[in-house]
Amino acid sequence: MSGFPPPQVVDDLVLANHILSNEGVLDAFGHVSARHPTTPDRFLISQTRAPELVEAGDLARVAGAEGRPYEEVAIHAAVYRERSDVGAVVHSHAPSVIPFGVTGVPLRPIYHMGSVIGHEIKVWDIAQRFGETDLLVRAATEADDLAAALGGRTAVLMRGHGCVVTGADLRAAVFAAVYLERNATLLAASLRLGEVRGLSKAETQRASEMLRGRAGDRAWEYWVRRLPHRATNP
Amino acid sequence: MSGFPPPQVVDDLVLANHILSNEGVLDAFGHVSARHPTTPDRFLISQTRAPELVEAGDLARVAGAEGRPYEEVAIHAAVYRERSDVGAVVHSHAPSVIPFGVTGVPLRPIYHMGSVIGHEIKVWDIAQRFGETDLLVRAATEADDLAAALGGRTAVLMRGHGCVVTGADLRAAVFAAVYLERNATLLAASLRLGEVRGLSKAETQRASEMLRGRAGDRAWEYWVRRLPHRATNP
Amino acid sequence: MSGFPPPQVVDDLVLANHILSNEGVLDAFGHVSARHPTTPDRFLISQTRAPELVEAGDLARVAGAEGRPYEEVAIHAAVYRERSDVGAVVHSHAPSVIPFGVTGVPLRPIYHMGSVIGHEIKVWDIAQRFGETDLLVRAATEADDLAAALGGRTAVLMRGHGCVVTGADLRAAVFAAVYLERNATLLAASLRLGEVRGLSKAETQRASEMLRGRAGDRAWEYWVRRLPHRATNP
Amino acid sequence: MSGFPPPQVVDDLVLANHILSNEGVLDAFGHVSARHPTTPDRFLISQTRAPELVEAGDLARVAGAEGRPYEEVAIHAAVYRERSDVGAVVHSHAPSVIPFGVTGVPLRPIYHMGSVIGHEIKVWDIAQRFGETDLLVRAATEADDLAAALGGRTAVLMRGHGCVVTGADLRAAVFAAVYLERNATLLAASLRLGEVRGLSKAETQRASEMLRGRAGDRAWEYWVRRLPHRATNP
Repeated sequence: MSGFPPPQVVDDLVLANHILSNEGVLDAFGHVSARHPTTPDRFLISQTRAPELVEAGDLARVAGAEGRPYEEVAIHAAVYRERSDVGAVVHSHAPSVIPFGVTGVPLRPIYHMGSVIGHEIKVWDIAQRFGETDLLVRAATEADDLAAALGGRTAVLMRGHGCVVTGADLRAAVFAAVYLERNATLLAASLRLGEVRGLSKAETQRASEMLRGRAGDRAWEYWVRRLPHRATNP
Repeated sequence: MSGFPPPQVVDDLVLANHILSNEGVLDAFGHVSARHPTTPDRFLISQTRAPELVEAGDLARVAGAEGRPYEEVAIHAAVYRERSDVGAVVHSHAPSVIPFGVTGVPLRPIYHMGSVIGHEIKVWDIAQRFGETDLLVRAATEADDLAAALGGRTAVLMRGHGCVVTGADLRAAVFAAVYLERNATLLAASLRLGEVRGLSKAETQRASEMLRGRAGDRAWEYWVRRLPHRATNP
Repeated sequence: MSGFPPPQVVDDLVLANHILSNEGVLDAFGHVSARHPTTPDRFLISQTRAPELVEAGDLARVAGAEGRPYEEVAIHAAVYRERSDVGAVVHSHAPSVIPFGVTGVPLRPIYHMGSVIGHEIKVWDIAQRFGETDLLVRAATEADDLAAALGGRTAVLMRGHGCVVTGADLRAAVFAAVYLERNATLLAASLRLGEVRGLSKAETQRASEMLRGRAGDRAWEYWVRRLPHRATNP
Repeated sequence: MSGFPPPQVVDDLVLANHILSNEGVLDAFGHVSARHPTTPDRFLISQTRAPELVEAGDLARVAGAEGRPYEEVAIHAAVYRERSDVGAVVHSHAPSVIPFGVTGVPLRPIYHMGSVIGHEIKVWDIAQRFGETDLLVRAATEADDLAAALGGRTAVLMRGHGCVVTGADLRAAVFAAVYLERNATLLAASLRLGEVRGLSKAETQRASEMLRGRAGDRAWEYWVRRLPHRATNP
């Protein structure tokens, strides 16, 4: 055993599961994890279950070899290994994001709220190194290849599959995952209208720094309140 | 009488009706059936009613000549006759699917979740053999022609009407019907962005085999929980 | 006074207001009326109020000169005058219909459910005869011109404004108004995919005759059940 | 202290926050303010909070230098300073509006309800005078520049950010903000169909004058009723 996780992290991870479902980022599939605060080579993730249904009891194991977490737990493990600055990871099939992964049209921030996704997002294609698979990322070699495509950025798309989004902590990762979805929707709508002027690299940098402030708490409070069947003071 | 159906099949068929309505696949129209588990030349289907309103009492007859099921019950009968591997059939007018049936743009899987629809889906046009009709499929000859267009595949589109989706059992058919709808939405969005790279034939095959595992139960549990006014343990 | 309306008509007209709101055809604006069953030169319509909020008390006047109904009550009066076969009228700003009115792209049925809108729908432009107005139809001369554009058809679009939909009775008019909205959504989506094959004139005729049967009651029961805060047996 | 605001203004401002959230104009971000009725150089605005969560207690300060209102309070201050005819201001990131700000495609009224946004809407770009920023409008010089781009019109778009909408009072500003969103959605859909005929300048003028009448109260009553968990007689 590597230490029981603090209640605050457990609560936030349950809420992160519910928020990402309620905001249309996750559905029956996809997952979110948080690095263990005191044993940083471990992380918390649910047993295999639709995120909307995840409860504290589903999280009560520190993932590694033990337990029976999601098949694609290797994605999370690889990102935490490669990126010491990352405290939380979301893997989703967010509908608005999929089209960018299968067309190669660059997914770029077009408004200040979208700046949290970073100025550049690459598309990783499992077929490039691993041939014709079922597209799941299970092996450490596959996950390491995906993490390499992520590099030092916030998000990476996966062709024919979905995306991975990271954050310094759970709230930051949830914020980035939601606004990746929102920005993708708005960019697609804008591209149907005409030529699009996105944020410049400096604008993206400055706006995303600004959003690291109180904005995250304000959004988190809002998303918690929007959860169905939940008391107003969680 | 050909044997009272087991409660589990009745429960699942009621839930299938409700899930397909709640997930946007069926509305006031469309229907889902299940092959009778002990008398395989019979199947269970509701009396004529909007799927969201179907209750166990609406299903308590084994369909054949008797009873007063949906006008298009011939669709189900023909598919069960032709396809001994099929245990459940969905006929829907899912909104995202209709445009592919009237334009002839191929509906193909573009992400691993969409692989369950199979690599190829044909469009059947009732007018080709039966002229200008009201587009309903009532006669056995019409239904057999539709079943022939379905062939050994999972789904077939009907021009100016909707689609038929099959599965080894109810959960598989519901899963395929939902993801046919989701994949059609995503493909249409992708085609508006640019040239689309879909799954290869081998990727489709491998991903759909993978999804035949625990994924179906995880999605079913989620869709049941999302039903309005329903206890958490159905 | 021209006779108190039967409770059944009042109930159905209240439900028609609520259903059309709940199904996205009406919002704060638009209205639905029913010809008075015993005094056919009169019709029932609500006082000025958002349709979702209409109650029986709002309908308790037979409209003509008296009362204070919607500003555009002339639309209804003109259609009932010109069309003895019409028993109910809907005027809406349904979002999916507006784009066809401002582009002139023909709104045609593309699937059997859409056949109820008829094979041809004209676009009426108030500016053609009445110049630059606020686009409301208040004067009898304006309403008569609109009714002439409607002719013997089921529906007519109004440029920069909305549409008028008719039916033999309330349930038929509601059915046509809902499927005008659905078909417009599907046609727009299809046109973005490629060249569209709509229903032929004979298919439209046959399918719309078929839908005059039990389909309307099945849909009505479903739409009533979907209303918020309503007992299951209305 | 500059006088306690009357309860009616407080009630309406709380409702305006909730309505704009519920109707999809505001989400976790954006804000709405009302000029103080007795001290017109002051205005009421919430403390920093998601609009859906705003309560009367959040508004109990007359904004100026004191209190801790939204970071972009300068937008409101500048508009009230420049426009004595304006009694309420909305700043939003309404999704359907963003694409017009980043493509430069003119956002114009295409139906009578959309006429309230005015015949012309400019796009203001903070980068033009202030270079590469985080896109927030904090300084009075920035806000004055934005107010100058607004001029005597109802609304102005902000490139890569959102928009500002004004009204003679709260209900008028809410009405304009909602229909700016609706009209943008419809215009984008229309432009995907074909060439669009919008309202003429005279039609826009006449329709918007007509909508200044009872229409606003009818819509307000409807939007209040649609709020979740609220008694029917607010």
